[in-house]
Amino acid sequence: MAESRFERGSRILASIDGQGGQAVVDSLQDIAPELGNWIVEFAFGDVYADPTLDARQRELVTLGSLVTQGDTAPQLKVHIAAALHVGLSRAEVIQAILQTAPYVGFPRVINAVNLARAVFQNEDEAKVHEG
Amino acid sequence: MAESRFERGSRILASIDGQGGQAVVDSLQDIAPELGNWIVEFAFGDVYADPTLDARQRELVTLGSLVTQGDTAPQLKVHIAAALHVGLSRAEVIQAILQTAPYVGFPRVINAVNLARAVFQNEDEAKVHEG
Amino acid sequence: MAESRFERGSRILASIDGQGGQAVVDSLQDIAPELGNWIVEFAFGDVYADPTLDARQRELVTLGSLVTQGDTAPQLKVHIAAALHVGLSRAEVIQAILQTAPYVGFPRVINAVNLARAVFQNEDEAKVHEG
Amino acid sequence: MAESRFERGSRILASIDGQGGQAVVDSLQDIAPELGNWIVEFAFGDVYADPTLDARQRELVTLGSLVTQGDTAPQLKVHIAAALHVGLSRAEVIQAILQTAPYVGFPRVINAVNLARAVFQNEDEAKVHEG
Amino acid sequence: MAESRFERGSRILASIDGQGGQAVVDSLQDIAPELGNWIVEFAFGDVYADPTLDARQRELVTLGSLVTQGDTAPQLKVHIAAALHVGLSRAEVIQAILQTAPYVGFPRVINAVNLARAVFQNEDEAKVHEG
Amino acid sequence: MAESRFERGSRILASIDGQGGQAVVDSLQDIAPELGNWIVEFAFGDVYADPTLDARQRELVTLGSLVTQGDTAPQLKVHIAAALHVGLSRAEVIQAILQTAPYVGFPRVINAVNLARAVFQNEDEAKVHEG
Repeated sequence: MAESRFERGSRILASIDGQGGQAVVDSLQDIAPELGNWIVEFAFGDVYADPTLDARQRELVTLGSLVTQGDTAPQLKVHIAAALHVGLSRAEVIQAILQTAPYVGFPRVINAVNLARAVFQNEDEAKVHEG
Repeated sequence: MAESRFERGSRILASIDGQGGQAVVDSLQDIAPELGNWIVEFAFGDVYADPTLDARQRELVTLGSLVTQGDTAPQLKVHIAAALHVGLSRAEVIQAILQTAPYVGFPRVINAVNLARAVFQNEDEAKVHEG
Repeated sequence: MAESRFERGSRILASIDGQGGQAVVDSLQDIAPELGNWIVEFAFGDVYADPTLDARQRELVTLGSLVTQGDTAPQLKVHIAAALHVGLSRAEVIQAILQTAPYVGFPRVINAVNLARAVFQNEDEAKVHEG
Repeated sequence: MAESRFERGSRILASIDGQGGQAVVDSLQDIAPELGNWIVEFAFGDVYADPTLDARQRELVTLGSLVTQGDTAPQLKVHIAAALHVGLSRAEVIQAILQTAPYVGFPRVINAVNLARAVFQNEDEAKVHEG
Repeated sequence: MAESRFERGSRILASIDGQGGQAVVDSLQDIAPELGNWIVEFAFGDVYADPTLDARQRELVTLGSLVTQGDTAPQLKVHIAAALHVGLSRAEVIQAILQTAPYVGFPRVINAVNLARAVFQNEDEAKVHEG
Repeated sequence: MAESRFERGSRILASIDGQGGQAVVDSLQDIAPELGNWIVEFAFGDVYADPTLDARQRELVTLGSLVTQGDTAPQLKVHIAAALHVGLSRAEVIQAILQTAPYVGFPRVINAVNLARAVFQNEDEAKVHEG
């Protein structure tokens, strides 16, 4: 039987964001459950599902977008973690953020590298606890 | 003798943007020549010069940033052409633009794919004239 | 048989935007046909389909959003026409634009009322030609 | 005797925002008292005073504008409360926020529904304390 | 008899923008005359009227704001002309635009210096015709 | 021997931001040291170094830019302090923020005067401790 949009979206969401994306979707259940569905079905079931770009390439575009937009700290943290989860290195994530400097200036970039530091530290602490 | 920042920036600018980037720099000579120098030296001599990300990866970030920012049509056209110049396919450029839809909504994305169409058509016409 | 998301979206799109929305969707067929589908299925088939707000209320929110975002002239023209099409008066459309002045300042508002004038004039001319 | 702009603005501010708007105006007295006056006189005495749109319609436009602009959390909380105060239901407020998703993407919308949840909870707690 | 807000605003508008500001106000008469009044009364009669900053200082802030916001080309042209009208030199206007580069990146700055060139050329042509 | 870009940038950074700017640069050493260098060399060694505008004029432009951009609270606090450090009065800083109201609306301006109050209070407390 064919995979539904929701199933495809859930599978891709998990493969990209690990647990972070599903946590966002779950957190919306009490206030706007359709918003969670749209993120799964439209963002991941439709947009991310096209194989022309791989997950690493999609996260590079997404980092460029979120750093530039501003006022997206929670989403930027999820996607910095997602970028690492799909195989970009910490150095590549930092360089992706720095790449936006000529286009959006230093304030957005400074705030984004500070968020990256926090994500890296959370990861390090999680590994210590697991270890 | 060591390559200067300006020389390094000019070399990288040419390798990424082809003639489009230099045309922007040249166009600023009469009104704000230091701005042209900063683009060569800072954007290309400093930011793009780090080898951690390759030119294709940097253009994916840049497309994500420029689509999101808005009111950047001239720069977006230069960087759509640059993305093709460094080896991304037309399909990859379109997918990079579409990847921003969940993050910035449809208006920015519609306007950007319309710019991409114009860049592709310019390229096709240039090839006819060359042929 | 149940109406599909695409059928529901197409029906709602036509009821709200008249011919203007379908023209946008059609214009994307050659460059990014999935984008046209997403607009029909996600924006109109999912978001607009909820009956909690009626079409007039949704267009008031949409005008507030598009005026504020900036660099959305083509979309703003479509939605000014849509606002009239679903029954808002010209005076209500102008007041909706003016309502954003305390929140986004005068430049966005001046540019938006100039677009509204153009939409109103197009409509007047179309009526003369029909008459 | 005719109502002054300040009196008209104060009356409309109270009718729309309840105590939240006046609290903002009062909070500015020590640092920029003219800013408080401008909000009363220009935003409420001039803009909101036109009867073409009613208070519910104006709050729909305002929610569309504030969600879209970003970095407006304090103002968005005041206007979510104002929307409820003038008679929009919680479901209508959530739908107004969701309506912006096709135009500004998910990050702004996720952050806004999280603010709405907080405003609803504050209201519920206030009712318990009153009760 | 005391000068009204409208009279004060009109006087300051003329002193700062020369004919350009009044032309904007006049152009709004047919579509949203209250918007023209608000610009005169609120922007110029209230905000600009405070003597703490002089007209040159206010135009420096305004240039920083308009370059940064984006999609404000008509307003930026009016205020580049206004900056010259109140006594800033062409070199100071260009430097004011360049000063935003570290904060908003190159695209906004490139587009703004291109607008400045157009304003300077218009002025030069007007002088030739007057001469 | 000629002053290097880094030396010139460091000197100008200290003259404008006092200790606040260097603190930002230092804070980036562990996560993105080249970003700190770019701020010193490009922003201060190149952009601020041109003598056409003095430091007070540059801070007026910068305040206009940062208030308008939004999501720049840390940078706005540094530059409100910098504006005072180069000789603008508190009243001039507040007026510079208020000057953006007609161009970006009240939310950005309210948030910025609240940041200014915090900077002024920090300064007052520092003086008490020094005294």
